[in-house]
Amino acid sequence: MTNPLMIKMLLDTWNSRIKDADAAFDKLSDEQLLNEVAPGRNRAIYLLGHLTAVHDKMLPLLNFGEQAYPQLNEAFLSNPDKAKAQPATAAELRQYWKNANATLAKHFNAMSPEAWFEKHTAVSAEDFVKEPHRNKLNILISRTNHLSYHLGQLAFLKN
Amino acid sequence: MTNPLMIKMLLDTWNSRIKDADAAFDKLSDEQLLNEVAPGRNRAIYLLGHLTAVHDKMLPLLNFGEQAYPQLNEAFLSNPDKAKAQPATAAELRQYWKNANATLAKHFNAMSPEAWFEKHTAVSAEDFVKEPHRNKLNILISRTNHLSYHLGQLAFLKN
Repeated sequence: MTNPLMIKMLLDTWNSRIKDADAAFDKLSDEQLLNEVAPGRNRAIYLLGHLTAVHDKMLPLLNFGEQAYPQLNEAFLSNPDKAKAQPATAAELRQYWKNANATLAKHFNAMSPEAWFEKHTAVSAEDFVKEPHRNKLNILISRTNHLSYHLGQLAFLKN
Repeated sequence: MTNPLMIKMLLDTWNSRIKDADAAFDKLSDEQLLNEVAPGRNRAIYLLGHLTAVHDKMLPLLNFGEQAYPQLNEAFLSNPDKAKAQPATAAELRQYWKNANATLAKHFNAMSPEAWFEKHTAVSAEDFVKEPHRNKLNILISRTNHLSYHLGQLAFLKN
């Protein structure tokens, strides 16, 4: 029923976007991280914190364990840029970003193709019977596109 | 071998991004389309032409037929914004965008799950044996992420 090639394609796409994001953040100095990606828009450091928090929250959502950095949620998920004090330094955020993705990779690599079709934790068992597409793979697909969306914005800082 | 649910999830994601793009372009007047999404960046009309040309080129790439609007390629694919004369009016571009996506939808809806694993036309039969992930589904995945990338940029025009 499950096609391992399809899982590989989706993981390759995820990994490739993570690599693009790593490259984009790595080329920015801590000072440059404080620049808005466009006038009046999110700063690069907000995008770094936001993406880290979203990826970190994939751990409980995919039933891999607890969030590692819940202290990021208020500043980077529940509120817009600059509304809250920065809960971590740029160096810490860079490290959390790498750690969150490394933890996800460890779990992804250990999953059988079938495991991707298990329900994620934000859907009830009852709803999952009716909506089997609300599975772990769908989280991977949507988060990959979420990352692409913000990469398009981060690209404006390139020049 | 093939999982129809997986194909449905990927088509749902594509359709949802197309709907987001439709909404974003529809809310802009022809005059607003001429605005840069951020200072010194692509104008919205360039993103409309670019996305239309990229989606239109999926027709030959997926072996569905000829490109319908090859006249867009030079201005919107081979060159950056403002380098070439605009090859179509805003009204025409809006229509081409809808048409290109409608043509793709017609073909997508007629495909069997297995057909998504056929090779696309930019890979040789020899290479495809070694690289079976270079299939039609991979084009769908990458073009969905490409659309998400530019949607993130287009969102800067919202306010």
